Amino acid sequence: MSTIESDQAGGFSIRGRLMQTPTMDQFEVRPGALIRVGADGIITSISDDPATPVDIDLGPNVVVMPGLVDTHVHAPQWPQVGTGLDLDLERWLFEYTLPLERRYHDLEFANRVWNNLVPTLIAAGTTTAVYYATIDVESTTLLAEACVRHGQRAFVGRVAMDHPVGTPEWYRDVSASAAVSASVRSIEAIDALGSALVEPILTPRFAPACTDALLQGIGEIAASSNVAIQTHCSESDWEHAYALDRFGMSDTLALDGFGLLRDRTVLAHCGLASETDLTVMRQRNAGVAHCPLSNAYFGDAVFPARRALGVGVRVGLGSDLAGGFEAGILAQASKAVTSSRLLDTGTDPGSEPGSRGRSDSSIDTITAFWMATAGGAALLQQQTGLLQPGRPFDAFTIDLDAANQRRSSGLRWWPEIDDDLRLFEKIINTARPSDIGSVWINGRLVAGGA
Amino acid sequence: MSTIESDQAGGFSIRGRLMQTPTMDQFEVRPGALIRVGADGIITSISDDPATPVDIDLGPNVVVMPGLVDTHVHAPQWPQVGTGLDLDLERWLFEYTLPLERRYHDLEFANRVWNNLVPTLIAAGTTTAVYYATIDVESTTLLAEACVRHGQRAFVGRVAMDHPVGTPEWYRDVSASAAVSASVRSIEAIDALGSALVEPILTPRFAPACTDALLQGIGEIAASSNVAIQTHCSESDWEHAYALDRFGMSDTLALDGFGLLRDRTVLAHCGLASETDLTVMRQRNAGVAHCPLSNAYFGDAVFPARRALGVGVRVGLGSDLAGGFEAGILAQASKAVTSSRLLDTGTDPGSEPGSRGRSDSSIDTITAFWMATAGGAALLQQQTGLLQPGRPFDAFTIDLDAANQRRSSGLRWWPEIDDDLRLFEKIINTARPSDIGSVWINGRLVAGGA
Repeated sequence: MSTIESDQAGGFSIRGRLMQTPTMDQFEVRPGALIRVGADGIITSISDDPATPVDIDLGPNVVVMPGLVDTHVHAPQWPQVGTGLDLDLERWLFEYTLPLERRYHDLEFANRVWNNLVPTLIAAGTTTAVYYATIDVESTTLLAEACVRHGQRAFVGRVAMDHPVGTPEWYRDVSASAAVSASVRSIEAIDALGSALVEPILTPRFAPACTDALLQGIGEIAASSNVAIQTHCSESDWEHAYALDRFGMSDTLALDGFGLLRDRTVLAHCGLASETDLTVMRQRNAGVAHCPLSNAYFGDAVFPARRALGVGVRVGLGSDLAGGFEAGILAQASKAVTSSRLLDTGTDPGSEPGSRGRSDSSIDTITAFWMATAGGAALLQQQTGLLQPGRPFDAFTIDLDAANQRRSSGLRWWPEIDDDLRLFEKIINTARPSDIGSVWINGRLVAGGA
Repeated sequence: MSTIESDQAGGFSIRGRLMQTPTMDQFEVRPGALIRVGADGIITSISDDPATPVDIDLGPNVVVMPGLVDTHVHAPQWPQVGTGLDLDLERWLFEYTLPLERRYHDLEFANRVWNNLVPTLIAAGTTTAVYYATIDVESTTLLAEACVRHGQRAFVGRVAMDHPVGTPEWYRDVSASAAVSASVRSIEAIDALGSALVEPILTPRFAPACTDALLQGIGEIAASSNVAIQTHCSESDWEHAYALDRFGMSDTLALDGFGLLRDRTVLAHCGLASETDLTVMRQRNAGVAHCPLSNAYFGDAVFPARRALGVGVRVGLGSDLAGGFEAGILAQASKAVTSSRLLDTGTDPGSEPGSRGRSDSSIDTITAFWMATAGGAALLQQQTGLLQPGRPFDAFTIDLDAANQRRSSGLRWWPEIDDDLRLFEKIINTARPSDIGSVWINGRLVAGGA
């Protein structure tokens, strides 16, 4: 690593082994990529140049990759990560999760959690995160402030939920109009932070938690503003059947009727979405936060990512903390491949081969990493997720020699055996947050010490 | 951590927060467990005593757990961990894996890999490993020597494979009798190391790679000795159908006919084993190395662990490096739960709820950790896997305060929120090798610096 350190305010240059996925079926490697980053954090040029002196010369044994996009995080659930997963979704929510979320009116507690979670995600390479906060406007604003403080690109949503049956009386908006006005106040509070990286997102929790009046009201805010939207959709047989019963149609179509399927609408899960649902998503430029680990617990099925991508739906990956329990999106990229295999073959040995699963469902690590980066960014209409001139320098590094030396790392590079694509597969499958070195967001070093 | 260090040759005492699973549905926690270990590495007593001075006082914020048992590891596949998984099992073996295994006649290469793999597994808390080595006797002996050197409890198997169709001509035993005699030589060479921790294991690769004469010959060695046995069984529709076609019965029953189902027989995978197969395994005291991650790639179905345990079959967990790509068994415990959920619900959203999967298949983290420790040990008829008087001190630690401080850790302990069972769930689901501190095998400190 070079000792030359330029004044970052004037931009900098960096060289390493660039690996990324420009499209969902394309892998790119540039062993001696020289990346120049402007003072505004935007990449000005990338050349294949092993010789010119640069500010930070990582050498060919440090991989540089575009930053990861986590399209679905429940920030207040962070303290319970990894627990209670033997419960079904309804019990998990009412008996376990919502009581925790209620604690965040204690702003000291909120700040402690936010300032623990955000740096943890950044250290895992998550340069963009899409957060559900709480129903509390103040603690939501504090989450946005934590993102600004730590330098993370983020969408932060104050959760709207007012349904008298679908929410507990001790954790709900008192009315649809109160929910709408609190959502507007939260947008104003986050906008008032004046950050170029952090913006609000409209967050009606999911159909069972929201009255028609609330969904309609959020749809109207969306129509009159350019604020992004997130909600849950077609997660679990319970929720899916609920929507069919209440609306006489899928929640996807019902949400569309309320004006909630638009550019930058992030629909979490969608495991049970139909062909018609996928078509409507595509027509509206809405997309899916695919959360493979969480879906194994609460989804009742595997989201058919390959089919959705094949019909042109935008798909990113989500950790779904704490329905999923892994901080960081490399692990979800790996799990997206694993779960696609289990969708492809099926799981029940009591069924005949060929009738257990849904063939032609497998994806590979290239598609998975694309969803984790450029795919997630496209869903949010961000320019990140690829390292190219004109795009922000959101990136992380993996030092292969350091990983090889570290007994607790599972990443092992054997240069005599691994070609670049094999090395890429290894990174997706075996690199963990402790293997991630430096992280930059919009050209600013936010973790590690490059 | 105490600065008092006794002469380990005279035994030592240690105190921490003990967590373990005495049975498959029982969780035990002892916050101030004082464990005394004799000079022979055997636990002499455990008391609940927060006050008496001890040699190593870890305090209540360091968890002590019984060491992990990895019942299925292909040591020579370590350099390719995490790669080539888009191939089907047959192509993965012939085009990718066996060419790598052939390299190990280069003993310098073999030693490099073994001395990289074994410490990596130990650092991940794997105190016992069951290894497939190669067909080469010398490199197999070197693997056993590496285990002795690094202090790992291990079963090391020289791979026998002679089938003229099921193996490539460039990587096979020249005849059944040559395979049998090489297996005997390997047993003698490993026994000659004189280690109390490392022993040989008979290793006919799997039915397609072995002639009847070889299987018969290995069965005869087993009958006349007390050497353990390992092979693969009912992994993938391809292999399962092959066995039915060749033997007119399942490979489980065929292996039994050759005398290969006995005490300490480890059958890897068994995803497609029938009720009859499970019954025969139980009758013979044979058991299963359940490898949930690998099975998602090559198994074509999820092994029904709950059903097998319910009928009394012994089940441990295996990493199946490199069909699985995670070094360490905590991750497999977590994945065993995840894959049991996907077996329970099924994966195909195009099927109706209730007909996608096999209900009553879910296991919880307690059962998963039991398989990772006491269950795997019972399969091998070892006394490890539980910390109790009379059993060897094979154990590892997790420092909760250190994990909380480390941004790259996903393990977050919130004492005000987590009770002991929730903390245990967190450890299973979110602790990774980098969270593991000290590791002891038979009372000897083999990793970390307690």
